[in-house]
Amino acid sequence: MLIGVDAGGTSTRAIVVDTSGRCRGFGVAGGGNPISWGPVQASRAIRDAVTQAVRYARESEGSADDSGDLEGRGGGAAIIAMAGASALISPGAMTSDLRELGHSSRVDIVSDLLATFCSGTARQSGYVLVSGTGAAGLRIHDGQIVASADGLGWLLGDSGSGFWIGRKVVRAALADLDGYGPRTAMTSLVRRELGLPEGAQRNPRGRFMSLNSAVDVLYQLKPVELSRFATIAFTAAADGDPVAAGILDRAREHLVRTISTVWDAEDPGPIVLGGSIAARLPGLESAIRVAMEVLAEQPVVMVPDGAVGAAVLALRTAHVTVDDEVFARLVTSTAAFR
Amino acid sequence: MLIGVDAGGTSTRAIVVDTSGRCRGFGVAGGGNPISWGPVQASRAIRDAVTQAVRYARESEGSADDSGDLEGRGGGAAIIAMAGASALISPGAMTSDLRELGHSSRVDIVSDLLATFCSGTARQSGYVLVSGTGAAGLRIHDGQIVASADGLGWLLGDSGSGFWIGRKVVRAALADLDGYGPRTAMTSLVRRELGLPEGAQRNPRGRFMSLNSAVDVLYQLKPVELSRFATIAFTAAADGDPVAAGILDRAREHLVRTISTVWDAEDPGPIVLGGSIAARLPGLESAIRVAMEVLAEQPVVMVPDGAVGAAVLALRTAHVTVDDEVFARLVTSTAAFR
Repeated sequence: MLIGVDAGGTSTRAIVVDTSGRCRGFGVAGGGNPISWGPVQASRAIRDAVTQAVRYARESEGSADDSGDLEGRGGGAAIIAMAGASALISPGAMTSDLRELGHSSRVDIVSDLLATFCSGTARQSGYVLVSGTGAAGLRIHDGQIVASADGLGWLLGDSGSGFWIGRKVVRAALADLDGYGPRTAMTSLVRRELGLPEGAQRNPRGRFMSLNSAVDVLYQLKPVELSRFATIAFTAAADGDPVAAGILDRAREHLVRTISTVWDAEDPGPIVLGGSIAARLPGLESAIRVAMEVLAEQPVVMVPDGAVGAAVLALRTAHVTVDDEVFARLVTSTAAFR
Repeated sequence: MLIGVDAGGTSTRAIVVDTSGRCRGFGVAGGGNPISWGPVQASRAIRDAVTQAVRYARESEGSADDSGDLEGRGGGAAIIAMAGASALISPGAMTSDLRELGHSSRVDIVSDLLATFCSGTARQSGYVLVSGTGAAGLRIHDGQIVASADGLGWLLGDSGSGFWIGRKVVRAALADLDGYGPRTAMTSLVRRELGLPEGAQRNPRGRFMSLNSAVDVLYQLKPVELSRFATIAFTAAADGDPVAAGILDRAREHLVRTISTVWDAEDPGPIVLGGSIAARLPGLESAIRVAMEVLAEQPVVMVPDGAVGAAVLALRTAHVTVDDEVFARLVTSTAAFR
């Protein structure tokens, strides 16, 4: 039995997989990224998800053993995928954490982007573009990251990410409220999200009272929390709002440029797309295909997260060959648990 | 003797003015904005600038009295102009602070934008557009602020400000270094500003080591400190860099839109421009004239800060009529001190 964990910013998913590639247990817990949540809470989320997955695995075996651990199953490799977190949480600490759950082998921490790539293909070379809260593109060759673009964080990069879109949504809504930006349907959606009334009262300086309230509330947030407003752009654009559509158009352009930067025409391969923004952004796949004509015969695959990929990497660490058949078994058996 | 103080983010300027409008003393100290510097340090900067101005005033009178205070001069009104700081520093506290310097009358705190307007004209109705670290536009009518646009801060607004430009400069430089943005002359200027070598060493993932160093250094800064990189856009644009020129073009468009938002064609008046970005942005005045044709016969005036305006407001508080003659005397006599 091997373990793959995707410790994301908003949720953590764990898979228990056997050496045939069959998913035997699946667990979900809260955010497991130590940068966002601190190492203590992140460790707890990872343990919770793994405990849940292990319990499933035990139950599916109909085992009478209810100790909830992996003892006697020869606990193999465990892979935890997380974003740039190696400085805050060590493989050693995670190894002893999982040992308490009865897992006897060592734990490796890998890039969440690499795990996302491995969630989409059994091949060991190709490309991955992720746009969730952040955004980055990678080229993978023989299982190693050999080139990257963006992923520079909310202030300095992450163009086309959830934060990038959410910041523009909020700025557009406030500019509309204040009168210096065009009217947009996003304004009342942002107001509603902030729980502010539609009231048209103005202060003596001619400013909407609700604008001042919105500014006060928004500066209380951590900047990166603006990413939660990204969803408003999708809603408004679907209803034909041109300001929202413009934001999404530019996000798509940025993401196409990010993946184009790492593309090597001499080394074509599948492109895996991950993250909540990549999943919803209209026309992203076709824009990528147009930008990279050579891609025509390559698959573009959308994946929900890096959980399957973490399990793939755990299998490979245990010297299991993950061919198309094993990979398909893992994907199908995991989907049954979601 | 009256006192006008402009307590800015990077420096504080104080003017001692007599009731004829003649500047009798001028003082400069460090940043006096309590939001940026905390109330203790801000108060100290204001006291330092006032002490210096009072000493000048005393010396210019050839007075033997070296107590350095205003005693016996019947210290009149004092006006302190600062950005949105009323929550952190109270007129009462400033009154007792200045009382220790021998100033016996009350202190009022006013908007730095209103003071900037009053630095540019003796008229009491008109417009002001400021772009320094932040950016905002106001309409003033009979000495009162009756409309405003933007000024929503670095995260939510301030389009076309020093922060707005500086953030784009840094993002463009890093995107160039990382390969997902176009080449720009700003890259080596940002590297130099950060003290990073030009080295072309890459890590195993193909990323420039200097890019990682830059990201590490920049995330140590307070976000608003990115405004110091704005000057790089001016340098590079003057040398013909198209990326830098594009940033400045968009900044100008934003600022024109901000002032256009508060413009009322029924109530034309002079436009006062203030702040380090407004002072340097090529073509700003003519772009404003094009946008507001009615403005043709109205003056557009560039002012260095709100110090003269704070003195004007102090004169008016003391019921001195500030006509064109008094105003011209104040401007000329203050310029002699700078």
